[in-house]
Amino acid sequence: MRIGIDAMGGDEAPLQEVKGALASRDLLGPDDRVVLVGDKAAIMAHLEGATDWQDKIEVHHTSQVVAMDETPVEALRSKPDSSLAILAQMHKQREIDACISAGNTGAYVAAAQMALRRLPGVHRPGISILTPTFMGLVAICDVGANVSCRPQHLHQYGLMASVYLSAIGDIDKPRVGLLSIGAEDGKGNELVRNTGELLRDDPNVNFIGNVEGRDLFTGVCDVLVTDGFVGNVVLKLVEGMATGVLKAILGEIAMAMPQMADVVKQAGGTIISKYDYNEYGGAPLLGVNGICIICHGASDFRGIKNAVRGAMDLSTREVNETIVKLLSQTKDS
Amino acid sequence: MRIGIDAMGGDEAPLQEVKGALASRDLLGPDDRVVLVGDKAAIMAHLEGATDWQDKIEVHHTSQVVAMDETPVEALRSKPDSSLAILAQMHKQREIDACISAGNTGAYVAAAQMALRRLPGVHRPGISILTPTFMGLVAICDVGANVSCRPQHLHQYGLMASVYLSAIGDIDKPRVGLLSIGAEDGKGNELVRNTGELLRDDPNVNFIGNVEGRDLFTGVCDVLVTDGFVGNVVLKLVEGMATGVLKAILGEIAMAMPQMADVVKQAGGTIISKYDYNEYGGAPLLGVNGICIICHGASDFRGIKNAVRGAMDLSTREVNETIVKLLSQTKDS
Repeated sequence: MRIGIDAMGGDEAPLQEVKGALASRDLLGPDDRVVLVGDKAAIMAHLEGATDWQDKIEVHHTSQVVAMDETPVEALRSKPDSSLAILAQMHKQREIDACISAGNTGAYVAAAQMALRRLPGVHRPGISILTPTFMGLVAICDVGANVSCRPQHLHQYGLMASVYLSAIGDIDKPRVGLLSIGAEDGKGNELVRNTGELLRDDPNVNFIGNVEGRDLFTGVCDVLVTDGFVGNVVLKLVEGMATGVLKAILGEIAMAMPQMADVVKQAGGTIISKYDYNEYGGAPLLGVNGICIICHGASDFRGIKNAVRGAMDLSTREVNETIVKLLSQTKDS
Repeated sequence: MRIGIDAMGGDEAPLQEVKGALASRDLLGPDDRVVLVGDKAAIMAHLEGATDWQDKIEVHHTSQVVAMDETPVEALRSKPDSSLAILAQMHKQREIDACISAGNTGAYVAAAQMALRRLPGVHRPGISILTPTFMGLVAICDVGANVSCRPQHLHQYGLMASVYLSAIGDIDKPRVGLLSIGAEDGKGNELVRNTGELLRDDPNVNFIGNVEGRDLFTGVCDVLVTDGFVGNVVLKLVEGMATGVLKAILGEIAMAMPQMADVVKQAGGTIISKYDYNEYGGAPLLGVNGICIICHGASDFRGIKNAVRGAMDLSTREVNETIVKLLSQTKDS
């Protein structure tokens, strides 16, 4: 397969993207290629020093870049030759079979949705991110693609994230929880109250009921269904708190025993790596008619390489095909 | 003043409630009283062993108890003589000047709203909880009273929590952030997009703009405004994650150096105490025409005592009076 990478997207683009492409070579079969999309001169500056890449990596020149802080729709309108827009277009034309970007998430999601459209039966695509929780991975869906959800959207997020997790994480019948503010059916806002029944009625979803914020860390569910607003708040809260708690604990311990600073530092490092987005292959935008992997802006070459692996897994494990098949069996699809 | 305590509410009621009332005696002035509301025999069983309480503590007998897992409205309807219902009624009749409960939050909020009604100008009461963040306290409002918010409600939460925090936390012009999924005005769901302007236009609110989930831990704001659904998810997530991260870190360090287990344990204890709800005097239901303090179900006697202190502070620092005054100056009140 041919995997396109937005070379201009991340915080250290195109350096980490080029290094990621080079690091991905050992994942590729004889017919696989990585296509770096972006400013050719900037890409080549990092690529030229390397050896043995010509038969694995291609470069597709684009002249514009969408910055991290640009408004998605305006940026895409005013920059038709941006690496993000071209990446989505190339996927639409099937010049590539998957796309990866660590750039402006909003613009990437908008470009992908516009170019690729949705899989048959899908109401709205959703971003599904694997979150390490010390009790195993939990796939949270959606974390920001759709902030105006209807119950049917949440139902499909439960189904799509289940398919994703069972394919990628080798989890049989992932336990799906609906994020609410109490375990009882009557608790929650209108959206949540109207979603429970849809999830419960779908034989392809192993729905365990409502769960609370704390249950992200209690190991009761493998998939956490929520709307894109709440999911994004949760994601960034976890990120911020992991950093904050770690700093605090390391600070307390270092004060108590400065001579053990190294051990403490090492323990902190182990924890941080469990929260390190580079260890997980980006987050797929599930529901689009294609394979779109969203990487954290701070991803380094390992994050890019793992996203390449994730794209290949989504393809070989037929995640999209399974989603379409199961959605065709649901009542409200 | 007379402060009513639901003696039947918490996980260890009435033991911790009675101990809390006894511990509160040194806070009370000559005319102050604590009134324990609940099953007289059960209360007296814990009170009789104590000395010197008769001139500070009264007992008001009620025959019914609302359990933690009961549906609020049904519980209040079927148990008119529950400690929660009577507590709210006593406050309504001004037999007490404040009420405290660690019981069923939903039932308590419903009873308080029905009995006490709202302060002049208030659309919806909101629960404002002080959350320790290693960068100082942040007041989050609302965390569960109102899951169907309109922009006017969120605006008032910003104002009411500001008044509360500046009175209780001695913070001048608390910085108010609106919880969203990006700092830009255009980001967020419809509710958030329509709330920003109201907060910005209110000269009595020191609005700093939208903040993200991670900003709860970056010290950029003193008040975090959000709807009751998101606020409750956030609160329980923080609680669950603090526990999860601590366990993980202590586990990693203990494995690395079992001989230092004590120091590690102590560091963990310091952190936990910073997250210990017993150290903060419960959460007020702001906006009702009275003083209602909600305690965590796991509160022990320290939590109850600090809630008594909180109730007295709300009264002497005239939080309700200030809220009414400032709301009368806002355009959309």
